[in-house]
Amino acid sequence: MNYFREAINLLEEYIPGEQPEEEGYIKLNTNENPYPPSPLVRERITEVLNQGIISLYPPPLGGKLREKAQEVYGLPLDWIAAGNGSDELLNLLFRLFLDKGDRVAYPFPTYTLYRTLALFQEAEREEIPFPPDFSLPESFFSCSAKLKVVCNPNSPTGTFIPLPQIEKLLSLSSCPVIVDEAYVDFAPCSALSLLREFPNLIILRTLSKSFSLAGLRVGLLFAHPPLVRGVLKIKDSYNVSILSQAGGAAALEDMEHMRKNVEKIKSTREWFSQEMKQLGFLVYPSQANFVMVKKERKDLKFLYEELKKRKILVRYFPQWPDSLRITIGKEEDMSTLLAAVQEIIEG
Amino acid sequence: MNYFREAINLLEEYIPGEQPEEEGYIKLNTNENPYPPSPLVRERITEVLNQGIISLYPPPLGGKLREKAQEVYGLPLDWIAAGNGSDELLNLLFRLFLDKGDRVAYPFPTYTLYRTLALFQEAEREEIPFPPDFSLPESFFSCSAKLKVVCNPNSPTGTFIPLPQIEKLLSLSSCPVIVDEAYVDFAPCSALSLLREFPNLIILRTLSKSFSLAGLRVGLLFAHPPLVRGVLKIKDSYNVSILSQAGGAAALEDMEHMRKNVEKIKSTREWFSQEMKQLGFLVYPSQANFVMVKKERKDLKFLYEELKKRKILVRYFPQWPDSLRITIGKEEDMSTLLAAVQEIIEG
Repeated sequence: MNYFREAINLLEEYIPGEQPEEEGYIKLNTNENPYPPSPLVRERITEVLNQGIISLYPPPLGGKLREKAQEVYGLPLDWIAAGNGSDELLNLLFRLFLDKGDRVAYPFPTYTLYRTLALFQEAEREEIPFPPDFSLPESFFSCSAKLKVVCNPNSPTGTFIPLPQIEKLLSLSSCPVIVDEAYVDFAPCSALSLLREFPNLIILRTLSKSFSLAGLRVGLLFAHPPLVRGVLKIKDSYNVSILSQAGGAAALEDMEHMRKNVEKIKSTREWFSQEMKQLGFLVYPSQANFVMVKKERKDLKFLYEELKKRKILVRYFPQWPDSLRITIGKEEDMSTLLAAVQEIIEG
Repeated sequence: MNYFREAINLLEEYIPGEQPEEEGYIKLNTNENPYPPSPLVRERITEVLNQGIISLYPPPLGGKLREKAQEVYGLPLDWIAAGNGSDELLNLLFRLFLDKGDRVAYPFPTYTLYRTLALFQEAEREEIPFPPDFSLPESFFSCSAKLKVVCNPNSPTGTFIPLPQIEKLLSLSSCPVIVDEAYVDFAPCSALSLLREFPNLIILRTLSKSFSLAGLRVGLLFAHPPLVRGVLKIKDSYNVSILSQAGGAAALEDMEHMRKNVEKIKSTREWFSQEMKQLGFLVYPSQANFVMVKKERKDLKFLYEELKKRKILVRYFPQWPDSLRITIGKEEDMSTLLAAVQEIIEG
């Protein structure tokens, strides 16, 4: 007996990176931040615990979290929505715009959740291959769709689309365009500066990466008020827990802390990329907190597995077997990884 | 310009109870628990904060929270799913089963979110009026639907369907049946005892009410493994924050604490119900942590508003103007409420 919608039965499952229960792993597989969040996060969460308000429902719209975002990003409150991670916001947006048979377009390869969410809506997918330089594909500008999505910097490649291309995309698209900026704090600039001009732009952010808060599940959405109202209309009433709201707001209060961590990661990224090139890998130019490395016509599964035996986790995607996605961790962890890679490929 | 799906434009918004930002309210409008959660909750959350793991993604399936649920409810792990509140689980279930045009049936009046979720799926709603004694309507047993939902105890009435009726419903229904037991800890018994026998039964629980954890957003789902797998397949990868998992697990570790609070609330409920009858209200027999009170052919909006002026919040539903839903708070708060009601209706 199967009670599910047909679309569910056909759905490819999104398989997230491994979260080992066992300790002692160097975890470079899910783009977490190796540095702790601002100490304010713990302070503010402890304050909420002491206030004894966790028995009450949280502010439905994100309370202080949203107010802090307003200050930090210089947008009015009604241009901002908070989510249970940016995954929830993506989920809501796909449901907001896509009816069965509607088309969603995105350059490919990219964050595999877009495909899952499209299948879930029974939407038609237009997955347009990136050209070799990972600029936006020509046909992406002009294609007709109900929704377009760009992950910028892109996962799993780490490559970055310069703002003029995003601007051109927004000008030429008559549909909403999601710019998923999960990794943008590691990049030179954000599409935020384009927001007021383009009512079809939706920017997604997460506090999981640059703010070191993956465990709290906090995402933010910036868009013109009518789009924000749509998201608020369909989200669960109390979608962000009171502690996540408090922790998220605290992180936004200490931008200095985030920026310092980001600088460390960026410098490790540059050094690590050079080292991997020395070891004979093709390394995509990354503006994120990870790099994609490639060996043309080689299946890197063995490397992934050998590293795992040495308790180092990196990300292997079966659909891109010649590549591995490696999160930028602390310098010492990257050194350990480099030594292991060298040993494995020379062994 | 409107980019939304037509269904979204037509959607009635679910309006949750007010969450006043201002302090000093006696809050009897959203069925929160007036007593604090187990002290273990704070302890365990603090432990997680000290471990410095909030920069990592949480266990995707709920980790210790799910393991504790396994112990407490005596079910294997693969019979359990954890959600970001039971609202998220409801949301997932409606999406799992209902295609456009499919029928969902539930007795009415009930939790208004069911209607919102049905509209969202563009499902056909069969809202079957409860008979005056609030037993299950006859046609609900036999009607054909893709999904049936019973809120038990029911909101907003607080009334309770005895187990034999639920059993009959499960026997006669060829579709999945959600029994939403958000308030069941305040009632004499749960449908959990029927779970092994009925592969179409899905039980929902929340830690928001009896466990005093509304702020943390923790829901649980119990069902046969194939149904649980469906839910896990479509949920966001990391739907429950690491702190909510820790807090939820801690609450389940201290069932004694929950039961003591529940006993206090139940005894306040019985006393308060009698007092309201004395004041001339019809009081529905409640097995929940709230009571619905009614004045035949009266619009109670004035009472709701007068109470609000006195900083007492109760729930007024415009669709049931002759009734108010009143959460059972601490005895002293209920006394304050009773005095205010008396003053208002005599004034």
